[in-house]
Amino acid sequence: MRAEHINPFLRSIANTFETMLGCDLQRGEIVLKKQKNLQFPISGVIGLTGKAVGTVVINLSEAVALNAASTMLMMECGEVDEDVIDAVGEIANMVAGAAKAELEEFDLSVSLPNVVTGEKHDIKFPSNATPICVPFQCKWGPLQLEVGLETVGASVAHA
Amino acid sequence: MRAEHINPFLRSIANTFETMLGCDLQRGEIVLKKQKNLQFPISGVIGLTGKAVGTVVINLSEAVALNAASTMLMMECGEVDEDVIDAVGEIANMVAGAAKAELEEFDLSVSLPNVVTGEKHDIKFPSNATPICVPFQCKWGPLQLEVGLETVGASVAHA
Repeated sequence: MRAEHINPFLRSIANTFETMLGCDLQRGEIVLKKQKNLQFPISGVIGLTGKAVGTVVINLSEAVALNAASTMLMMECGEVDEDVIDAVGEIANMVAGAAKAELEEFDLSVSLPNVVTGEKHDIKFPSNATPICVPFQCKWGPLQLEVGLETVGASVAHA
Repeated sequence: MRAEHINPFLRSIANTFETMLGCDLQRGEIVLKKQKNLQFPISGVIGLTGKAVGTVVINLSEAVALNAASTMLMMECGEVDEDVIDAVGEIANMVAGAAKAELEEFDLSVSLPNVVTGEKHDIKFPSNATPICVPFQCKWGPLQLEVGLETVGASVAHA
């Protein structure tokens, strides 16, 4: 993944949280994803296809997931139920959708979002992919964004 | 998801295990996925986009993942390391790739495969999707296939 391709995702997650959820994100240091467990128990995951293929993961602490869902749905969400799952999937969808509009050279489409739950889950990428991981803090707690995006075909990869 | 769309995936997982891994699958009863934890700790996940969007999940017991990887890589895999992760992702990729060739009316593309690990992980679909879950047994142990595929646009959905 080329480092500059993370920028549309950084803008889209910040815009999604600010405009949809009224929540400012403070960004931490951008790192390559290491092969260790994710830190948080709820992940919105969405696949990307086109002239590049990849995955966007929005990994949320439970507090961020519940507060974000409560804000989106305008109702109190006290546990990770179907409504919260749908809200997290929709946030992943919005982040991926806004970023793909900026990455028009790849003509990207997004898959159905899935939401992975489980205290110790980890979402691993193929070893030849180099996903980028970006931690954030917000008023509800911590979250992180992970993006792996690999161009299809060498002429695009090294253009 | 229309029930008949599961058939290409049933054929492709059986063919992949038989031809790539020399392993016959015995199919259990096809059910709608319930909102409960998956049974097995390793999932190969791949997104589908096109005139339908969806996700294919190959959920494997550790014994199936290790034996399948050992067979593919022609070396003994004793723990779930990077090689096993790549092998599980490649199996998901082959299953999705062969099925999409049969579902040409949807003009599907596949995303980068991911592999989710964690004893109690669950991969949830949006509440308006109705993923189909199919358990299998093989000589190495149990596994299951989950597929959610939703057509894009009513004219396709109800054609």
